[in-house]
Amino acid sequence: MIELRSDNAAGVAPEILAAVQAANTGSALAYGGDDLTAQLHDVVRSVFDHPTARAFPVTSGTAANSLGLSALTPPWGAVLCHPTAHIMTSEGGATSLFGGGAVMQGVAGEDALVDPDALRATLGAVRWGDPHESQPSVLSLTLPSDLGTAYRPEQVAELAGIARERGLRVHVDGARLANAVAAHGCAPADMTWRAGVDVLSLGATKNGALSAEAIVVFDEEIADQLVYRTKRSGHVTSKMRFQSAQLTAYLTDGLWLRMAQSSNRRMAELVAALEAVDGIELVERVDVNMAWVDLPAAAIDALERVGEVVFYRMGATRIRLVTSWETTAEDVSEAGRRFAQAVAEAS
Amino acid sequence: MIELRSDNAAGVAPEILAAVQAANTGSALAYGGDDLTAQLHDVVRSVFDHPTARAFPVTSGTAANSLGLSALTPPWGAVLCHPTAHIMTSEGGATSLFGGGAVMQGVAGEDALVDPDALRATLGAVRWGDPHESQPSVLSLTLPSDLGTAYRPEQVAELAGIARERGLRVHVDGARLANAVAAHGCAPADMTWRAGVDVLSLGATKNGALSAEAIVVFDEEIADQLVYRTKRSGHVTSKMRFQSAQLTAYLTDGLWLRMAQSSNRRMAELVAALEAVDGIELVERVDVNMAWVDLPAAAIDALERVGEVVFYRMGATRIRLVTSWETTAEDVSEAGRRFAQAVAEAS
Amino acid sequence: MIELRSDNAAGVAPEILAAVQAANTGSALAYGGDDLTAQLHDVVRSVFDHPTARAFPVTSGTAANSLGLSALTPPWGAVLCHPTAHIMTSEGGATSLFGGGAVMQGVAGEDALVDPDALRATLGAVRWGDPHESQPSVLSLTLPSDLGTAYRPEQVAELAGIARERGLRVHVDGARLANAVAAHGCAPADMTWRAGVDVLSLGATKNGALSAEAIVVFDEEIADQLVYRTKRSGHVTSKMRFQSAQLTAYLTDGLWLRMAQSSNRRMAELVAALEAVDGIELVERVDVNMAWVDLPAAAIDALERVGEVVFYRMGATRIRLVTSWETTAEDVSEAGRRFAQAVAEAS
Amino acid sequence: MIELRSDNAAGVAPEILAAVQAANTGSALAYGGDDLTAQLHDVVRSVFDHPTARAFPVTSGTAANSLGLSALTPPWGAVLCHPTAHIMTSEGGATSLFGGGAVMQGVAGEDALVDPDALRATLGAVRWGDPHESQPSVLSLTLPSDLGTAYRPEQVAELAGIARERGLRVHVDGARLANAVAAHGCAPADMTWRAGVDVLSLGATKNGALSAEAIVVFDEEIADQLVYRTKRSGHVTSKMRFQSAQLTAYLTDGLWLRMAQSSNRRMAELVAALEAVDGIELVERVDVNMAWVDLPAAAIDALERVGEVVFYRMGATRIRLVTSWETTAEDVSEAGRRFAQAVAEAS
Repeated sequence: MIELRSDNAAGVAPEILAAVQAANTGSALAYGGDDLTAQLHDVVRSVFDHPTARAFPVTSGTAANSLGLSALTPPWGAVLCHPTAHIMTSEGGATSLFGGGAVMQGVAGEDALVDPDALRATLGAVRWGDPHESQPSVLSLTLPSDLGTAYRPEQVAELAGIARERGLRVHVDGARLANAVAAHGCAPADMTWRAGVDVLSLGATKNGALSAEAIVVFDEEIADQLVYRTKRSGHVTSKMRFQSAQLTAYLTDGLWLRMAQSSNRRMAELVAALEAVDGIELVERVDVNMAWVDLPAAAIDALERVGEVVFYRMGATRIRLVTSWETTAEDVSEAGRRFAQAVAEAS
Repeated sequence: MIELRSDNAAGVAPEILAAVQAANTGSALAYGGDDLTAQLHDVVRSVFDHPTARAFPVTSGTAANSLGLSALTPPWGAVLCHPTAHIMTSEGGATSLFGGGAVMQGVAGEDALVDPDALRATLGAVRWGDPHESQPSVLSLTLPSDLGTAYRPEQVAELAGIARERGLRVHVDGARLANAVAAHGCAPADMTWRAGVDVLSLGATKNGALSAEAIVVFDEEIADQLVYRTKRSGHVTSKMRFQSAQLTAYLTDGLWLRMAQSSNRRMAELVAALEAVDGIELVERVDVNMAWVDLPAAAIDALERVGEVVFYRMGATRIRLVTSWETTAEDVSEAGRRFAQAVAEAS
Repeated sequence: MIELRSDNAAGVAPEILAAVQAANTGSALAYGGDDLTAQLHDVVRSVFDHPTARAFPVTSGTAANSLGLSALTPPWGAVLCHPTAHIMTSEGGATSLFGGGAVMQGVAGEDALVDPDALRATLGAVRWGDPHESQPSVLSLTLPSDLGTAYRPEQVAELAGIARERGLRVHVDGARLANAVAAHGCAPADMTWRAGVDVLSLGATKNGALSAEAIVVFDEEIADQLVYRTKRSGHVTSKMRFQSAQLTAYLTDGLWLRMAQSSNRRMAELVAALEAVDGIELVERVDVNMAWVDLPAAAIDALERVGEVVFYRMGATRIRLVTSWETTAEDVSEAGRRFAQAVAEAS
Repeated sequence: MIELRSDNAAGVAPEILAAVQAANTGSALAYGGDDLTAQLHDVVRSVFDHPTARAFPVTSGTAANSLGLSALTPPWGAVLCHPTAHIMTSEGGATSLFGGGAVMQGVAGEDALVDPDALRATLGAVRWGDPHESQPSVLSLTLPSDLGTAYRPEQVAELAGIARERGLRVHVDGARLANAVAAHGCAPADMTWRAGVDVLSLGATKNGALSAEAIVVFDEEIADQLVYRTKRSGHVTSKMRFQSAQLTAYLTDGLWLRMAQSSNRRMAELVAALEAVDGIELVERVDVNMAWVDLPAAAIDALERVGEVVFYRMGATRIRLVTSWETTAEDVSEAGRRFAQAVAEAS
């Protein structure tokens, strides 16, 4: 079976599993009081080239996003994001739960990316200071987006600049940040705090970790809040060293970027194969390890019946394909062949 | 260094780490759609001898408690518990957060256990139906308590009976349930649903797991709610199979009880050694793997200076000792020797 | 000065003020335990022709809406409404606050009314039972809408039917319900519970009351919840008899409809005058006592400078006009004259 | 019938009703944009001798308390109060609702007043900075208490000083503040902000208003928050001028204190009469217009049967008596006579 449903379905990278095992040496203080968690802060500061960044290991992307956002918005705030943002479509209202009733509002844009003019128009129409209206308080950028596109650092900086001018804070949902950094070949700092980002959800689980994400905070007052917000939401694991070990291994020696480069490359190969097929159309340009693809319903039906290539169907004639660090060149070449054949037989 | 601070500080049992590694075989559906999570439900039903129990793996005891309670209480409810209960003293108000502003109220009792007469008196004094008063909605029992004592099954049943008569639901915080079950040698069912318990927080992390607790639910309507409550609070891990694998290994072939028996036995040995020392007094009887002990301040000071035996100091002359599945007979014999010597030198 | 900003700016009807004074006769039990509140339930049952309806007096429309909705949706739910709905644009996120993090989602439609096909499409695209997605739980209809249009009873019934088929509950924000009932000349029951509505926010303040709105509940289980939800949000006034007296006077002998007819008629007269002016365009059809109007910016500027006719400006060339029970025929004739003159001078 | 159940059961003072009528002159901007609300700020600043105090009219004491507290505590905070405090016993968990899951914790003391040493001990035992423990964030003083006793200004200052030293903010629930100010003959400022109070719930309804309380804020940052917090909880009435008019009348020319003096004096007369009766015992000293009294159960039974004097029964042999601004000298003399007779006949 060739797995193209989600990078969440992939396994754990050997380097990360080894780090978990290596962390299992006798006792260590619970709740983040251990040496491995202390080390993680240093690693994050080094990778993001930031002197005071702090990392809060959590075990899901939803936790990272909603807790980070809850520290950035007052309860009467509105979190602005693209209508396709994961926080709006796929987290069951977590941001409103942890945000004390804060709301989310969509700001449109091509390619699943917030459009600067749309953002300006939204902010320009706000009745600032009028408590009848939820007050925009945070801009949250999904990077890469849930459609496989990724802002470039200068785009993040432009949007963050527009937002900050009106007093908003800036958040990045980086569940697949490694794929975006790898795609653009930029410094992690340039895509985050140097572009005006206050809080980052740094994904690792989709890209080879076992159960580890991190809220990376570039603002100390926000970090102080998260000490409490993570604990009282049940997101401070007692044996935190085992999450910290994963994250440290992930960020060390460029492992995170190597794995992301691999999944990006596999997707590029797959896309090349699909584009060569008459009857297959990309829905969006593909920046990272995800593609949304239109093809004949009969072809999808047939592929689903066989079940050798698995993917998510998003509509009668639309599917989503995601590669992971585990996807091999053989996988994508075989998948490409099967897609071509299914489309041929369907016409 | 002899670790007696917390069983949270212990490492991961080899059987459980092996199960994590064994789960790392190719791809599997995320968010609990995998075979290992399906298997976990069966294991839980077998261990608890209940036909429809469901298990929700989470990664902290605070998550298990507060989410379980949030499904049992309306926002205008009051969760009754002993004043020493972990949910009241040590979870940063998580129950009120997830409970939509539900409150916690203490019901006193000797030995850190809720007293049946105090419970009756509390319930008898409620202005039922008067919205000025938070309406008692759940009885939460900490089993074992945070002072090392443990209700027997018939005590759970008595308290649950009193509560249910007034329409309350019953919750057990079983962060160390294995130690209580091992201590009393009872069937898990007798201490939980057969005694009237609706929802159980089943701890595993303190007793050898890596990062796995479970909300075990004996009521299907409550379980249906938890599908949503766990997700939107960020407590559905994407690679859930790695939590499920831990829990299945933990509950299989009695591993959980063997480990708990070991930590209980080590504590019993340590207690026997301490009781023989003039100048050391137990604060509470010791049912499981935890003891609260009074001894001269100077003796505690000296032990802290040396740092070879580590524990939590709870006051000038009071410490807390906890053994774990990793604690050895040598550990406790050496610890006993050092305590005796410190007390002798302090007088 | 001719007041066309809002019916909220109007004063209190003499009949209602007299009822407040009449209620001031010695002592009466607080928190709704008084005779006038008991009487209000009967009046509501009679006016709405429903045997068990219950009324909860509150002092703002936001309270009525958000508390009513909080009793209809689980915290993981989504409240569907038109994007122009007051609950979405003008209540500061109250629904998400009292809903425990429930979200609001817009469903489009012409004339500020939810379109049945759009509603069907929205419900058809939901991943039901998937906790990643907020689950549509309530359809909230603003009746009349914030643009001055009003569903007819059969439209309410159609939309409610579509919603109920998928298990949603139905809510009406009737801050100006009297104006809609008066406009359509229908029975209050036909526009509410007979059409499938569970909970109604019945406005009175905009239409002549002092400080009284009511949550009218056609479902006893929901009403039982509201006993607690109103109290713990601070919406049970101690001297409730003075709110109940207002509502009873309002609903007695058709006072509410007579006042609404008057404000509707004044608006119809004003609209007729405006439509006769070249250069003035209605933005929406006018069903009740509100009109949105486009006219030259210079004309608006001039009217604002003079300040004899006051209204809300919604854009460079757009204003909102609202009449109230206090608006006189002279007011609207004079206003019409001034609008015509301003437009003439601006061209 | 002689009303001694609650001052909430009393009617509206003629001066206040007249002010409501006088406010009904044509149109005025809604939501507090009117002149009467602007004037209220000045009146409050004058009465409290504070240059920047702001007043937020609301319609219940629960709203005033819980919204004020929600602006003073982070969600992970603990509000400290006496175990008999109204916010803990009688507001259905409103503080935890609006506080985002903040908790309340009791601090004991004689006479229903927080004891300074108990407060010091509580604060001394806190694990500051440890997110496992709800962090004390506000001291809330009920002034007068729900048992009829009242802190003197220097007691408020002492307690506030202890609290502020540890970084807590200070809140006063002044649902009956007028009675305390009248009893001690002190300046309102001395009992509030000069003593270290940040936010005050200023009651008026129990003392002659129709439906008006105010959150009085002595800190501008907190006031800025309340603009949003009051609106999104439905506590900004549209025709706010009618609440503001009540409050202004209440605070003007000492009306509030004259009414409170009257109810205090009536209670003093009643207490004198009761103390002369063998078989009647005061439960607490009586500082204001409330007394808790023990007398034979048979006497209470008899009084309840006759129903000419009405009061709340708090136990088999215990009742609560409250006088109001409406209570007359004849009322209390007749009540005293009936109590004496009932006790005589019961023995």
